[in-house]
Order: sequence, then C-alpha cells, then structure tokens
Amino acid sequence: MDKQSTPPDVVVRRLPLYARTLAYLKQEGKKSVSSQELGQRINVTAAQIRKDLSYFGQLGKQGIGYNVDELLQHINRILGLSQEWNIVLVGVGHLGQAIARYPGFSDKGLHLVGLFDADPAKVGQEFAGLTIRHVDEIPTVVREQGVRMAIVAVSADHAQEVVDRLVKAGVEAILNYAPIAVRVPDGVWVRHIDPVSLLHSMTYYLARESPTRRQTRS
Amino acid sequence: MDKQSTPPDVVVRRLPLYARTLAYLKQEGKKSVSSQELGQRINVTAAQIRKDLSYFGQLGKQGIGYNVDELLQHINRILGLSQEWNIVLVGVGHLGQAIARYPGFSDKGLHLVGLFDADPAKVGQEFAGLTIRHVDEIPTVVREQGVRMAIVAVSADHAQEVVDRLVKAGVEAILNYAPIAVRVPDGVWVRHIDPVSLLHSMTYYLARESPTRRQTRS
Repeated sequence: MDKQSTPPDVVVRRLPLYARTLAYLKQEGKKSVSSQELGQRINVTAAQIRKDLSYFGQLGKQGIGYNVDELLQHINRILGLSQEWNIVLVGVGHLGQAIARYPGFSDKGLHLVGLFDADPAKVGQEFAGLTIRHVDEIPTVVREQGVRMAIVAVSADHAQEVVDRLVKAGVEAILNYAPIAVRVPDGVWVRHIDPVSLLHSMTYYLARESPTRRQTRS
Repeated sequence: MDKQSTPPDVVVRRLPLYARTLAYLKQEGKKSVSSQELGQRINVTAAQIRKDLSYFGQLGKQGIGYNVDELLQHINRILGLSQEWNIVLVGVGHLGQAIARYPGFSDKGLHLVGLFDADPAKVGQEFAGLTIRHVDEIPTVVREQGVRMAIVAVSADHAQEVVDRLVKAGVEAILNYAPIAVRVPDGVWVRHIDPVSLLHSMTYYLARESPTRRQTRS
C-alpha cells in the first residue's frame, strides 16, 4: 500500500463520491462507518476503500471504522472545499439552461458567477439570476471574479474554440459536456461528461450476456 | 502486458472515447493513426493506448500504427455496437428534456423509445417525438420494446425508487444523473453522471497550486 504517496487520478475522482456518501451518512445520524458499509454504498470493495484512503493518512481504526464527520471534513479539505470556487458556464442552450438551474452547485462550494453565449438573441437575457453575456466578455468576468473553473455546454463544433478562449482567459479546469475530446495545454484539467460513452461502456457488458428478463424479479 | 485477458473496467470506459476519436479521424480522411497521435487526441499516453488495446488482440503494426477504419469497426464490435439498443428515460424535468433533445444518441446505436414521469401534468404530453408515460408503465414498455438500458434524470429523493422499478422491470444498465449513489443488485450496471463530483475532482488539483493568471497567454 502506497501510504501518503501521490494518489492516482482514478482515486482522486472517487474522493467526491466518498464525500457525498459521508454527507448522507451524517444526515442519517451515523457516527461511524466501516469500509464494508461505505463500500456497499459506493459499489466498490472495502479493500479498495481502505487502499484509496490510505493515500491521505491513517484515517480509520481497526474494528471501529471511520468517524463519519472527521472523514468527511478531512476529504473536503483534501478536495479544496474549505474554500469557495467561482465557476462560469458557456453555452446557454437546452442543456446549459438545465445545468444553470441545477440546485446542487452552491451548497457544494461552487458558485456560478457567469453565463455566456455567442447568440446575440440570448445575450442580455436574465437566466438563473444572471445576465447572459457575450463570449467576448469571458476574459473580463474571469479576471474580475477570480474564476478558475468553467463548464462548457456548447455543440461539438464550437467546443474547441470555447475551450481555447477559456484557457487564454486563465481558466485552469473545464467540465466539458460537448461530445468531443478537447485539447488543452499542460496544467489545465478537463473532465468530460459524455452520456453516449457511458452508455457504450455498459453495452460492452450487456453484449456479453444474453438478455435475461429476470423471471424471479418480475 | 495482459494480452487478451479480461480488461479492467477503467479500460472498458475508455473504449467509447477511442471509438469516437477514430470516427472523427475517419471523417477527416485519415487512413492510419499512431498510438502517439491517438493519445494526444484523448489526453492519455501512447503507452496506455497500446496497453489498453492489447486486451483486444494484436491491432496495430509496429512503425505503421493502427488502421483507422479497421480499429473503429473492431472497437464498435467489442462495444456491442453492431446491434441497436433501445433505451428509456425516466424524469422529464429540465435536465430530462435536455437529454431527450440530445441529438447524439440515435446515430450511436442508442434509440430512445420511452419517456416516463410521475407528474400527472406531464403524462400524456408529447416530447421529442414521444408521448410521456406514467412510471407505472415502465414494465410494459421495457418488455414490449426489449429495453435493457435506462437513463434516470429524477431528483436525488426519487432516484433509488426509480432505479428499483427499472431493475424489477428487467433493465440491466442505468445511466444515473441524480446526485446520489444508487444501489443495484449484482448483474446490473450503473454509471453516474455527476457534474459536482467531476468539478470537485478538479478543485483537488487547483487547491494544490496557487492561482496563476498565465501572463504569457493573456
């Protein structure tokens, strides 16, 4: 076990899921949780949980498990959530509107401070408490609001251009909903939300089994 | 290198991205591609690409690279995309509407054949060429249309109940947009679309560096 060494990105990507699950456990009034129980909630093995968390120090106690509140606070600190993050959204079409309306950002330390679109018909409209601004104003808002993260919800055709603008303006992390792999320079992070790829990564498994109608369940 | 052994899920999850990128290369008229070039497009190393693809046979040629069309067809077969998949969507709120309108499913072998909501005001309405039906009708549609996959776009409060209904009806793979980890029995696959977790997995890295305004770029 690589205690305290640099965690691989796959582990970093699981940390928010741990944090979210611990927050639910806390709401439910749980004081401690075993790696088995945490694992069942997240659909990973107990061994994987212990291995993941070992990158961040000796957090659990043999036979007692993890203190829910302590572990939650610890993971939130690791994730940089003891500070607040201003984010902007580019592309206010159907998908962008649904994202802008999403209520789950602000209580998770993520504040949507800017909406941008290239469509003159949209620019100037109010949406989700913000005025939609032209993409040309990205650098101004990024500078004024100290924005380091952005969400891109434009079409595949425009995604690379928008990402280039954001990176030039100083944005360091991008959540990309456009169905295309965008290129960024070193030091800029991109995560990709791609429902088709996620569905295809499951057809892989379904194609390997015959359809079962689960008679025992119906 | 584990040639032809069972690929880990992390590799399976990258396959759709390879397929998508190869499809773009094909559109651009490329006949062959090196692991370096494919890697640059996808932001993984050339070594990782060679390792990933080695699970599925000897696909590239030393010094020549991969034949774009052959590799694309091979990966599509591996992903089960030589057949078509009927999918249903549960939850036709803002997000569900954006998903239902998403034009990228049908040309990727994924056919949206049912929309469901629990809200009586929505049931019976036409949307994206389909009539919204009540969630009670999930079993009927799943059976009649041979549905094995579903997209869940309901609130966190209702996600587990909806997933339970889908699994009981025989659905074997679920793409979950609700911000909660849902529990499913063995043999059922779940992928989770969670923008907050993806953003948090990047704040992890940003919190480790001071904000740089990249003077050289602006």
